[in-house]
Amino acid sequence: MKNILDRELPDYIEGYGEVKPFQGAFSDTGIKTRKAVRLTCVTPKDKKVLETLDEALDELHINDGMTISFHHHLRNGDYVLNRVVGKLAKKGVKDLTIAMSSIFPIHAPLVEHMKNGVVTGLVTNYMSGPVAEAVSRGELKNPAIMQTHGGRARAIESGDLHIDVAFIAAPTADTYGNINGVDGKSACGTLGYAVSDAEYADKTIVITDNLVPFPACPIEISQIFVDYVVSVESIGDPKGIVSGTTKITKDPVSLIIAKMAAEVIKFSGLVKDGMSFQTGAGGTSLAVASELKAIMKRECVVGSFASGGVTGYIVDMLEEGLFKSIFDVQCFDLKAIESYRTNARHQAMSASMYGNPHTKGAVVNNLDIMILGATEIDTEFNVNVTTNSNGVIIGGSGGHSDTAAGSELAIVVTQLMKSRLPIIKDKVTTITTPGESVDVLVTERGIAVNPRRVDLIEAFSKTKLPLMTIEELKTLAEKITGVPKGIKTSEKIVAVVEYRDGSVIDVVRQV
Amino acid sequence: MKNILDRELPDYIEGYGEVKPFQGAFSDTGIKTRKAVRLTCVTPKDKKVLETLDEALDELHINDGMTISFHHHLRNGDYVLNRVVGKLAKKGVKDLTIAMSSIFPIHAPLVEHMKNGVVTGLVTNYMSGPVAEAVSRGELKNPAIMQTHGGRARAIESGDLHIDVAFIAAPTADTYGNINGVDGKSACGTLGYAVSDAEYADKTIVITDNLVPFPACPIEISQIFVDYVVSVESIGDPKGIVSGTTKITKDPVSLIIAKMAAEVIKFSGLVKDGMSFQTGAGGTSLAVASELKAIMKRECVVGSFASGGVTGYIVDMLEEGLFKSIFDVQCFDLKAIESYRTNARHQAMSASMYGNPHTKGAVVNNLDIMILGATEIDTEFNVNVTTNSNGVIIGGSGGHSDTAAGSELAIVVTQLMKSRLPIIKDKVTTITTPGESVDVLVTERGIAVNPRRVDLIEAFSKTKLPLMTIEELKTLAEKITGVPKGIKTSEKIVAVVEYRDGSVIDVVRQV
Repeated sequence: MKNILDRELPDYIEGYGEVKPFQGAFSDTGIKTRKAVRLTCVTPKDKKVLETLDEALDELHINDGMTISFHHHLRNGDYVLNRVVGKLAKKGVKDLTIAMSSIFPIHAPLVEHMKNGVVTGLVTNYMSGPVAEAVSRGELKNPAIMQTHGGRARAIESGDLHIDVAFIAAPTADTYGNINGVDGKSACGTLGYAVSDAEYADKTIVITDNLVPFPACPIEISQIFVDYVVSVESIGDPKGIVSGTTKITKDPVSLIIAKMAAEVIKFSGLVKDGMSFQTGAGGTSLAVASELKAIMKRECVVGSFASGGVTGYIVDMLEEGLFKSIFDVQCFDLKAIESYRTNARHQAMSASMYGNPHTKGAVVNNLDIMILGATEIDTEFNVNVTTNSNGVIIGGSGGHSDTAAGSELAIVVTQLMKSRLPIIKDKVTTITTPGESVDVLVTERGIAVNPRRVDLIEAFSKTKLPLMTIEELKTLAEKITGVPKGIKTSEKIVAVVEYRDGSVIDVVRQV
Repeated sequence: MKNILDRELPDYIEGYGEVKPFQGAFSDTGIKTRKAVRLTCVTPKDKKVLETLDEALDELHINDGMTISFHHHLRNGDYVLNRVVGKLAKKGVKDLTIAMSSIFPIHAPLVEHMKNGVVTGLVTNYMSGPVAEAVSRGELKNPAIMQTHGGRARAIESGDLHIDVAFIAAPTADTYGNINGVDGKSACGTLGYAVSDAEYADKTIVITDNLVPFPACPIEISQIFVDYVVSVESIGDPKGIVSGTTKITKDPVSLIIAKMAAEVIKFSGLVKDGMSFQTGAGGTSLAVASELKAIMKRECVVGSFASGGVTGYIVDMLEEGLFKSIFDVQCFDLKAIESYRTNARHQAMSASMYGNPHTKGAVVNNLDIMILGATEIDTEFNVNVTTNSNGVIIGGSGGHSDTAAGSELAIVVTQLMKSRLPIIKDKVTTITTPGESVDVLVTERGIAVNPRRVDLIEAFSKTKLPLMTIEELKTLAEKITGVPKGIKTSEKIVAVVEYRDGSVIDVVRQV
């Protein structure tokens, strides 16, 4: 079977199930049904606080074959996943599926659990480091499922991803399970990626290193979704949780790209009152924000909102009046946390509100301008941010496909070559985001517009922007680097790449 | 059939269905399932704003026999219910069930719609005025269903109360359906009673008189639950929506009762750090708060939270540091709105979080002290706030049963006689709240403790509190007023009084 993007897919994948092939970004809409949530009522005499994590794990009755979930707001500082899975391993539990919104190098101990059969399934939106490498080598029994941020919320809320127990790491929690992420030594800001887990899991347990008396105002996730609370010494390493500040790149090539991307935005006609904008936390992305900021100031434009994972840089734009509000699914730095804590215009959103395609309208639907990265992009504008050119998993969609699909103008910014390899391919190694959602590619040597966007091509052709076809850009790079050889993979599928609607857009095979 | 409180109930009530008899306040707990929500996905190109209410009603395809819901945050200033039902009547729609969280005198036009068969069902937590009188006279085809605030949320979330279309009056809304109640000319504060409707209805439409550009921060109900938005000239009369200030009673008898209630609280041992408290917005209730405030100040006690419908008086207690936080399901006055808008410790809660017994723990579960009213109370401590002694509906539970069930100490404060009628009866005309949830009755002539609370009787007997049995208090009143005659009702059931778990605690028969 082939999906609409010409990717070979089996009808059925062992350890995954039947394959629903990707058929276009908005092919699966209409009427949808959320899962019926099952819960155990808590009455006035019941207590939620358990003494130790061991007691909690006993109480939760986690059996072989269950799915347990975690969020990634503590990023590369997270202690919770390792601690919980380590204890379950000691208890002899096998065949667990870990549904964690993103996996980082700190989660390396999972590799051993994969080898020992403690963990046989992974569901995540992004992974990097030893776990990703081990999955790529075929060390996980079942194929990992790679989702998008919005797609994960959709999967949980629809019941496609059933969670037996959700472990919610909480920088602050009260004795009745209300939590927030703005107080405590492990403060991480908003808790957007944990919301669906808390609401839809069979059991939800909060793990905190800052247990406070009831109630933990401002409450971000409510007591009505939480069964148990347990206090531990530390849920994470603050150094890995947030950066002190996020900084604009100083690399001259990246700065050229950023300047050009800002020009693209300007000539697209979208820089006007009420505009909305999202960019990542990387140096180049922030450089685009900086250039855009200058244009907005010059033209006295006041935008509607900036969204996404939020940095201090975006907070500055809010505070300077360039945007009226921020939609924040996760805070990247301390300034973002402080802003969220104190400014009512800095609004938290759940992953579902951010990007779930099966709601009555996610925030990405209202996004004008989105700045995206790419490991590879092909001549159909399909983008890979899941694997490197050797087929090794180095990331995943996160919000890439969600924002690309929702935004009016999705711009991929990248250097034309990285590590002496061209970024533009005939076919990307793995498709993360379909070309239909990507409008413009900006590189230091030129700009390519998706042929679907006749309007943009027409607009840009009246400017001095270095417009080329994507094929021309590809040839340009290959003149310098040569044409790279294709990679060889085995037949074994190590990861299934799900589009936001749950269809399969691609698979990753063992390297 | 009789329920556990000895009330005669049919097994089946025409126009209502099978009767599940009340079996005790916490007899129906354990594992529960929420309804699977059906929704229509909104994609990036879709618009939600409809031009006129007429267009909206066409788009919504409201047919005979459907259930449409409304919230009561605009109280006796609400224009939305009358306007919508008036237009539906003109369109010739029949046999509607109106599920409105509370019904006020302003909703008098419903009576005509009841007579004409446009409205044949009512589901509400409280009703007063012409509609309540008409229901009592048997002018509604089906029995009205009287729920509690928490019970309504439970019914909606479980699917027991299916809502075809939820009409959400919004003091402020943006073009994508995010709403808040703190901005706009019709500001009413928190929107707690509208949350379940928005989340669980088949279709949700927002009606606003303050349509703002996206996004309407601070967002209280999210775009992800809203299908349509329509702008109208006015959703309500500010004079009926909130009072400028709420005031303590000056009536000397009420002040005596309040003082005694505060003593009861003091001698119960609950006045200590971390305590929690709720009272209504009535003059006597506020007088109790005033007395309690003095005690808390004298004893340097800092409470955890105050909850409920919130008045400026409670806000003062927050601001003076007597409570650390407020849980607010509705704001009664302008000061409460302003506090909610600006103070992160003034926390909104949904009706479900407030009192739904089938969640993982409602706020009422953590309540120490609750001050309640009563139209009648019987020697078993069962309380009637649904009908007057003539059997005419004059109110309903609202949060009465929810808070009584959840709180550690539920105190009924009332004058021993009202309009020359004794308040204490052998049997109350209608049971709203079961005696098992009521701990103490405080009147100007004496205090009666529920015999179940041996601990309180023991504690109070060491004090100078005028402790009596409830029978003694009853005799005391009857010496003055005489024993009132029982009322005569017809057999026809005009209202079914549901306890918070959906069981039937009583019925109201036609007068």
